[in-house]
Amino acid sequence: MTAVVSTAGASPSITRPSGRAPAQLREVRIERGYTRHAEGSVLISFGQTQVLCTASVEPRVPGFLRGKGEGWVTAEYGMLPRATHTRNDREAARGKQGGRTLEIQRLIGRSLRACIDRKALGERTITLDCDVLQADGGTRTAAITGAYVALVDAVQWLVKRGDIKPGKGGRDPVFGAVAAVSVGIYQGVPVLDLDYAEDSDCDTDMNVVMNDGGGFIELQGTAEGHAFRRDELNAMTALAEAGIAELIAKQREALGR
Amino acid sequence: MTAVVSTAGASPSITRPSGRAPAQLREVRIERGYTRHAEGSVLISFGQTQVLCTASVEPRVPGFLRGKGEGWVTAEYGMLPRATHTRNDREAARGKQGGRTLEIQRLIGRSLRACIDRKALGERTITLDCDVLQADGGTRTAAITGAYVALVDAVQWLVKRGDIKPGKGGRDPVFGAVAAVSVGIYQGVPVLDLDYAEDSDCDTDMNVVMNDGGGFIELQGTAEGHAFRRDELNAMTALAEAGIAELIAKQREALGR
Amino acid sequence: MTAVVSTAGASPSITRPSGRAPAQLREVRIERGYTRHAEGSVLISFGQTQVLCTASVEPRVPGFLRGKGEGWVTAEYGMLPRATHTRNDREAARGKQGGRTLEIQRLIGRSLRACIDRKALGERTITLDCDVLQADGGTRTAAITGAYVALVDAVQWLVKRGDIKPGKGGRDPVFGAVAAVSVGIYQGVPVLDLDYAEDSDCDTDMNVVMNDGGGFIELQGTAEGHAFRRDELNAMTALAEAGIAELIAKQREALGR
Amino acid sequence: MTAVVSTAGASPSITRPSGRAPAQLREVRIERGYTRHAEGSVLISFGQTQVLCTASVEPRVPGFLRGKGEGWVTAEYGMLPRATHTRNDREAARGKQGGRTLEIQRLIGRSLRACIDRKALGERTITLDCDVLQADGGTRTAAITGAYVALVDAVQWLVKRGDIKPGKGGRDPVFGAVAAVSVGIYQGVPVLDLDYAEDSDCDTDMNVVMNDGGGFIELQGTAEGHAFRRDELNAMTALAEAGIAELIAKQREALGR
Amino acid sequence: MTAVVSTAGASPSITRPSGRAPAQLREVRIERGYTRHAEGSVLISFGQTQVLCTASVEPRVPGFLRGKGEGWVTAEYGMLPRATHTRNDREAARGKQGGRTLEIQRLIGRSLRACIDRKALGERTITLDCDVLQADGGTRTAAITGAYVALVDAVQWLVKRGDIKPGKGGRDPVFGAVAAVSVGIYQGVPVLDLDYAEDSDCDTDMNVVMNDGGGFIELQGTAEGHAFRRDELNAMTALAEAGIAELIAKQREALGR
Amino acid sequence: MTAVVSTAGASPSITRPSGRAPAQLREVRIERGYTRHAEGSVLISFGQTQVLCTASVEPRVPGFLRGKGEGWVTAEYGMLPRATHTRNDREAARGKQGGRTLEIQRLIGRSLRACIDRKALGERTITLDCDVLQADGGTRTAAITGAYVALVDAVQWLVKRGDIKPGKGGRDPVFGAVAAVSVGIYQGVPVLDLDYAEDSDCDTDMNVVMNDGGGFIELQGTAEGHAFRRDELNAMTALAEAGIAELIAKQREALGR
Repeated sequence: MTAVVSTAGASPSITRPSGRAPAQLREVRIERGYTRHAEGSVLISFGQTQVLCTASVEPRVPGFLRGKGEGWVTAEYGMLPRATHTRNDREAARGKQGGRTLEIQRLIGRSLRACIDRKALGERTITLDCDVLQADGGTRTAAITGAYVALVDAVQWLVKRGDIKPGKGGRDPVFGAVAAVSVGIYQGVPVLDLDYAEDSDCDTDMNVVMNDGGGFIELQGTAEGHAFRRDELNAMTALAEAGIAELIAKQREALGR
Repeated sequence: MTAVVSTAGASPSITRPSGRAPAQLREVRIERGYTRHAEGSVLISFGQTQVLCTASVEPRVPGFLRGKGEGWVTAEYGMLPRATHTRNDREAARGKQGGRTLEIQRLIGRSLRACIDRKALGERTITLDCDVLQADGGTRTAAITGAYVALVDAVQWLVKRGDIKPGKGGRDPVFGAVAAVSVGIYQGVPVLDLDYAEDSDCDTDMNVVMNDGGGFIELQGTAEGHAFRRDELNAMTALAEAGIAELIAKQREALGR
Repeated sequence: MTAVVSTAGASPSITRPSGRAPAQLREVRIERGYTRHAEGSVLISFGQTQVLCTASVEPRVPGFLRGKGEGWVTAEYGMLPRATHTRNDREAARGKQGGRTLEIQRLIGRSLRACIDRKALGERTITLDCDVLQADGGTRTAAITGAYVALVDAVQWLVKRGDIKPGKGGRDPVFGAVAAVSVGIYQGVPVLDLDYAEDSDCDTDMNVVMNDGGGFIELQGTAEGHAFRRDELNAMTALAEAGIAELIAKQREALGR
Repeated sequence: MTAVVSTAGASPSITRPSGRAPAQLREVRIERGYTRHAEGSVLISFGQTQVLCTASVEPRVPGFLRGKGEGWVTAEYGMLPRATHTRNDREAARGKQGGRTLEIQRLIGRSLRACIDRKALGERTITLDCDVLQADGGTRTAAITGAYVALVDAVQWLVKRGDIKPGKGGRDPVFGAVAAVSVGIYQGVPVLDLDYAEDSDCDTDMNVVMNDGGGFIELQGTAEGHAFRRDELNAMTALAEAGIAELIAKQREALGR
Repeated sequence: MTAVVSTAGASPSITRPSGRAPAQLREVRIERGYTRHAEGSVLISFGQTQVLCTASVEPRVPGFLRGKGEGWVTAEYGMLPRATHTRNDREAARGKQGGRTLEIQRLIGRSLRACIDRKALGERTITLDCDVLQADGGTRTAAITGAYVALVDAVQWLVKRGDIKPGKGGRDPVFGAVAAVSVGIYQGVPVLDLDYAEDSDCDTDMNVVMNDGGGFIELQGTAEGHAFRRDELNAMTALAEAGIAELIAKQREALGR
Repeated sequence: MTAVVSTAGASPSITRPSGRAPAQLREVRIERGYTRHAEGSVLISFGQTQVLCTASVEPRVPGFLRGKGEGWVTAEYGMLPRATHTRNDREAARGKQGGRTLEIQRLIGRSLRACIDRKALGERTITLDCDVLQADGGTRTAAITGAYVALVDAVQWLVKRGDIKPGKGGRDPVFGAVAAVSVGIYQGVPVLDLDYAEDSDCDTDMNVVMNDGGGFIELQGTAEGHAFRRDELNAMTALAEAGIAELIAKQREALGR
């Protein structure tokens, strides 16, 4: 973190729209059991961004896995039409999901599969539906962070029913923890957890998914304005590391672990 | 209401799954300003049924109204995939809205247009997005009841901005109030505001939309088991009348009127 | 019917565009065997409205019924592009069925399932295709009334082949009769069986589906202009009752019963 | 025709399923004014094949013709789901028109454009909707033959309204006549106007569109079983020539010319 | 060929845009093994028209053939968006294949099925993907001619693997050869193998598919300007015969036969 | 590069399937003018991966840019059905582009927009169509690298026509160069430019897009097996830097600069 602090320290003049310090997350809230039908249901907020993440267990797997004794974890992402400043067309009405939606739900699915032992899950599919009720930047990182909690709840539901028995020499299908955060270069300074005001006016935007062992699961950086340098990359990943450590602590707290 | 009470009185043995009396609504909560971007945003609950209704104002009208000096009010309806007991496919992923969805959103749109003066609205469209976060029967009636409140808020937003001037000899584009409730015949007894347990096991299901003058706006009854008789129709509409009067009182209270 | 006659009697001044009395149906013709391939094929006319209703028997059921020993009855509805005053886009070319189409075909399907014993039908599907050759109001009610006759013919075809044996202690899969008619408030007066001129200029439009026991199967009323009162609802349902009794007599006559 | 007669004469043993002579058309009926809204509306029958052809005039042209002072003639084709021996899925429900449908409607459109002076038509589109009520082979050729009559009626409607003035040095937008018939090799013998029994069991199937000057507009031949020889091609086109001459006479008679 | 020569001889004045003689093909090149994954992969050029034809073998058949011991040959056709003078929308992006595409791929499939013994192929599907890299007229005829070579290679691949054993009393699933060429009437003169400049300015355009026995498999002629006469039809088919003989020689040469 | 060399040096035992050294690119070929209609047309090969990149200039911009005096650069990506080991369904036939396709084409578009001065381009759109003829890993990075060359050619075409005048105080709309390469961790060792054999069996796969100033434009890393560490990230980005420098040299050479 030293490098980050010094980088931020070198730009004492910038003020984030939210008044946050460069390495400061927004207020994060994780509310389990938000709706009652899903096996896992979490409302996560990163500041004004609110995403409802549900985990649904179904006793079947996609065709390519049938009969292999493995499970599957997948994700779908949606945004309510008026989650944003101006209304977006409803994807169901347009008759297709847009490229951004597909990209995000593929990212969420890959990220969560990185912490699941599919053999231990058995021939079941857990679908993580991440629906944005209100958007203020960072919806995909909030979705991943919340979906992890919903996934843990769904797996615990299976354990409680006796469908999975991790105790008797078995394994817990969820290993480690996964969380995500965005970082970026805003007015020349690396900052953590961009809100919409920063996201729409930054030079670089990077989404980082990591596990609780400090390993990178996904890293997606995009230069919006000018290309970013290696030292900026380093400063951003350092910020992300610290932010994700905080998020994983929040997840643990929410799960009562 | 005399007829209804006596009918219910004739079947003292039935117990509704929820323990409610035949003419009793579920607990209704109306929370304004639930999300922050929409001009009107209401979370309405009829017991465990929760629908987020947002009203979005846009300065344009559909092609068939262009240049006529009139506005338009329309609705879209959606259900989160895991709003229900088992997960439903996401309509955006399937690439089309189902018949039930289209039917409901057409109903919501017609119902709300019944209380709007489209000339007074001017060339603007207000779209009511009704998204079901959790379903337990009666989602369409909750949606209409909540969307009315969101519509009033959106029109007031226009008035506050000075876009509409109802004071100077002008008119308030919203006249009267509109609310909706379901009624049905459950185990031979007319009951008000069916929840899922009743809805999936009743003989007749009827959705009623009325205004604050006691007039019917929409009436949609379906015999699920056996055909219903005229006296049953009368008992159901009487129940609906009383229920809608209560709902309109709730709307007024929520609006601080 | 006393109430209806007196209501109509109280408005002697209105003239329906067609010159009909308020409680008078249009000329109804039912032509069986209109096309030759379908197991049932009926051309029904309500005045200038002409709908071709075919019943197709197929030896399979939808997935949710497989292996349950029950049959299914479903409907599809279409309108030829130039059935109407101006040409409508062909739904096949637009790539989807509109909300109105889906709503109508769901209504037809539910209505016909109300007179079929699905166990007695066995694991077969009967599809009722209702295609409007010419439209002049009331296409959905004509479709239901005609589809009933096509359904009876298709079931008789099964009986004649020996696929269904209702004689030997068995049951006729079709019990009772089903017909439908529209009613409305036109220039303040309740009228039966609206044609296009009335339909596009009325205050309330209601579609009523009933069986031969006088029970309601579906009731769908919409206030187009002003909300309708309970006495208007009563007058309209009374008109519908009488009209449907006439239609059921026409169905019997066409079926030679 | 000599060649054809002798070819047919060489195979005295074959009997067509319908009992017709090789060069014999099915009974052809052309009923104008079949439905009342369209500017031209023709029910044409080639034996048991029945196609409803409507011509709709609209005061606009496709984008690529806008502002060029020319009109457009186009066609759409559909088949009712139970026009055939077994029920076909409704294209509107499947969400797209099949390749066969698109191929046929393109053929109909090209054929009719071959007899229209698009300059004389002015900036108008005439859409020919050809909907098959009952199919027994030859639906596309019946469609073209009937659509021609509907097209003439629609143009006459424009002339009667004074929208087109062919008298004063102007031109009739329709020049000549267009009709179509199928020919094929059935059991080694060239035959005219195949019905379904022949069509599904023939070696070669050819659709021929010609004008009243004996010119070919479209020729589409397909070897179903073995490849066809040049002498067979000649025999088939000769049969088609004679058949089309008869069909054009039928069109004239129907038009009272 | 006498007739053709004399017809062409009667119009000594016309010059084809390419400078070719009326009966002259463009330069034809056939490159086998163009890509490496497909069981057959051929780049065929008719002058500037370039089509990549791949043949893919899959061990399954469509539903209607399952369990019948027969194989299937089918084709798909596509054009890269900028294969043409101006860019065309990508069909995958528009969400459907256009009518022209479907028509062409149905033609290719039918043509190739005319030279395949489906029993000898066994329960396998060979899909011929014909993708136009560069278009200059005649893409469908080049596709058929090239796809034949790819089909032969794919069948040889099956023979080499021992999946098909044509030697031991067995049959080669491919019998005969199939090729295709376009012919037309350009400035009054019948010409062979139209390029884009001719195709967009000709009176008649005809695509001819023949086998090596001189039999016609498909014949599709369209009058673009004026209707064509029987003598023109004869002249065109004679030109096609000669052209196809040349193309079949090229195929043999490419296959080293 | 020191770090990379030492990392690779620490794993002398691994052999890449292709026999390449860890920091070695595949053979790269760039062929300009591959097809003739497009304003820029490049066939790029990274070993067996072959992508045809065309640049099409159109004198219009998307709706959101209309009237702003700026141009647009966008991309579409496709893969021929048999570009891969087994045949993939054609996206045009399935009726939609998959998530992977949309994700890649969005990446290509963003990458190329990073080197274009949209004001200098004027109100024009340049569409980069990247179609994979043969796939062996790295299709998206080859596409970006080749599309850059096609983009330069298209802009030069505009300059030659005088549509853009960068000389007179104007600017060249293309500034700098952009290229892309994949890197990954294969059997514990960071390697450059993964082919299919490595891609399907690696622990981490990262796509890197950089400009000729050494700045990062896009960075997308995915842990396939285990999460990657920061030192692995550093090693991979160092490999990418060197590889991209080589690719930019190849681009310059191809462009004759």
